[in-house]
Amino acid sequence: MARRITVAKGDGIGPEIMGATLMILAAAGAQLDIDEIEVGEKVYLAGNTSGISLNSWNSIRSNKIFLKAPITTPQGGGYKSLNVTMRKMLGLYANVRPCTSLHPFVKTKHPEMDVVIIRENEEDLYAGIEHQQTDEVVQCLKLISRPGCEKIVRYAFEYARQYKRRKVSCFTKDNIMKQTDGLFHQVFKEVATEYPDIENEHWIVDIGAARLADTPEVFDVIVMPNLYGDILSDVAAQITGSVGLAGSANIGEGCAMFEAIHGSAPLIAGQNLANPSGLLQGAIMMLNHIGQADIAQKVQNAWLKTIEEGIHTADIYKEGVSKQKVGTREFAQA
Amino acid sequence: MARRITVAKGDGIGPEIMGATLMILAAAGAQLDIDEIEVGEKVYLAGNTSGISLNSWNSIRSNKIFLKAPITTPQGGGYKSLNVTMRKMLGLYANVRPCTSLHPFVKTKHPEMDVVIIRENEEDLYAGIEHQQTDEVVQCLKLISRPGCEKIVRYAFEYARQYKRRKVSCFTKDNIMKQTDGLFHQVFKEVATEYPDIENEHWIVDIGAARLADTPEVFDVIVMPNLYGDILSDVAAQITGSVGLAGSANIGEGCAMFEAIHGSAPLIAGQNLANPSGLLQGAIMMLNHIGQADIAQKVQNAWLKTIEEGIHTADIYKEGVSKQKVGTREFAQA
Ligand SMILES: CC(C)[C@H](C(=O)O)[C@@H](O)C(=O)O
Ligand SMILES: CC(C)[C@H](C(=O)O)[C@@H](O)C(=O)O
Repeated sequence: MARRITVAKGDGIGPEIMGATLMILAAAGAQLDIDEIEVGEKVYLAGNTSGISLNSWNSIRSNKIFLKAPITTPQGGGYKSLNVTMRKMLGLYANVRPCTSLHPFVKTKHPEMDVVIIRENEEDLYAGIEHQQTDEVVQCLKLISRPGCEKIVRYAFEYARQYKRRKVSCFTKDNIMKQTDGLFHQVFKEVATEYPDIENEHWIVDIGAARLADTPEVFDVIVMPNLYGDILSDVAAQITGSVGLAGSANIGEGCAMFEAIHGSAPLIAGQNLANPSGLLQGAIMMLNHIGQADIAQKVQNAWLKTIEEGIHTADIYKEGVSKQKVGTREFAQA
Repeated sequence: MARRITVAKGDGIGPEIMGATLMILAAAGAQLDIDEIEVGEKVYLAGNTSGISLNSWNSIRSNKIFLKAPITTPQGGGYKSLNVTMRKMLGLYANVRPCTSLHPFVKTKHPEMDVVIIRENEEDLYAGIEHQQTDEVVQCLKLISRPGCEKIVRYAFEYARQYKRRKVSCFTKDNIMKQTDGLFHQVFKEVATEYPDIENEHWIVDIGAARLADTPEVFDVIVMPNLYGDILSDVAAQITGSVGLAGSANIGEGCAMFEAIHGSAPLIAGQNLANPSGLLQGAIMMLNHIGQADIAQKVQNAWLKTIEEGIHTADIYKEGVSKQKVGTREFAQA
């Protein structure tokens, strides 16, 4: 039976890569019933500063599965990031970002890399509590809660167990933030004892990040607070070859949202240049999540085969590695 | 005339690398009068939870130049990071961290890299304002002030002008932290207009970090708030070949402190294994700062020659690139 899902085509390159992704899913026989909504720039500019209408919320809330293309938040004004609002309103506490090299098919300096970053997705400096203290001083609150830490750390260990991963690493700066990052680290140590089958370790985020950028093959699953996860998942995705290759799952108790990790790249929009791989990876994670694992595997194989045949969009095209430079549409057809 | 400076040998590998550094400085004819103080672990464990005595403060305050080896802060208890305390008490607002590849002499995946990270050094989450809000919720305050931003951004542009650098990039997350990081970015834009001879650009820190880790050669000088600077200077130093190669200058209105960017590495302490290069680079920055630029150049040349001859400590030793694996002492003699 077809699964009803909500889909948003987004802004910038969003419509092109969503078109490509949906075409591939249909060709692979995914059983989906699509409810399309409009979120992002057009909604903002029509005067709704949240970027999303009540009807759209209702669609996501009732379907519980949301495939979302990148959106643009207009500059200035009182616009809030819709991505962040959605994560919070839907309780999407875990942001899962696999970063795996496709060596030798995609050029990378880190051929052995296979890391999954599991980022806390609701707390930290993303709580959105900022204010002007005096004329010249502003402040932002970093919030960390014990239930928040427990949910994300446990999710990371469960993920490791489910996907047969060996080790979970934790990154914090608890030598400086002894209470906030200290709590995250403390909970990590506590929860780790419940998973004796999985290795665990902790790194101070500065040197952990350095190691990740230099020798990513020493890591497996890494769990961290929101902001570090934001920065280091972009680093990790980029050094596999391109941020354009990575998808992400935002997982909550009831709901889940799937997307590419990159943005809406307005500069190359509408030119058939964008790489649909990030969103497609998000869609593959979605298929696994809704129990269509066989279709997910089929799409993943077709995608790998296309990449392996050297059929590459411009962002990952490299002389000597790639064979054919193609546009968004041609890549999807391949 | 000899310049009086304060020196602390620190903990872990500190005494070895400081011994090596001072030996090299003396051999090169640096005119220094050394006032040695004790800071760090021993002071902490003797019951002084600040890790530094009043006499030591007085020495630093009167000499105004401080060369410091890495120190260890004991785990747990109410110990505060002495590094952070010193930066704050001495008003050391700029942390300057040059990260340059020594290709082909030191193995690196980024042969063209030549980046200077200028990190704000007193504000941000390092303000040390943390507390328990409820049983299960803790918070930390991120503080950003206009004068703080102005000082560091202006320092970055002045540095670029003095060292004939082409471009200053600014990294913030102002799409989320519109007030705090927004202020940093805003001040960057304002100050940049006073330096029409120097290019300027802004990156959101996530994708900026990704680019830095992947293609560092596109950057020149990068200025950023404290915590991003902490993480990304370790990343940048590491991908030049080793965090063990980078030194740092902490610059204030009256005072300046020079150090390696790495820590005290207690695990390899006392084994003649440590690479003194980071602290030596700090010392070279110090010589430049106190007007002994000719000696600084001489030390830098001798150091480069040693590295170029393939005489390497274990951390940067690589089959095929290095010629001779040496200890801390032998490296210094060479
Ligand atoms: C667009 C932005 C709000 C978002 C974030 O900061 O989380 C993005 O960078 C991401 O990583 O998904
Ligand atoms: C030791 C620690 C307090 C320090 C910091 O976080 O600033 C270190 O990581 C550094 O970068 O100098």
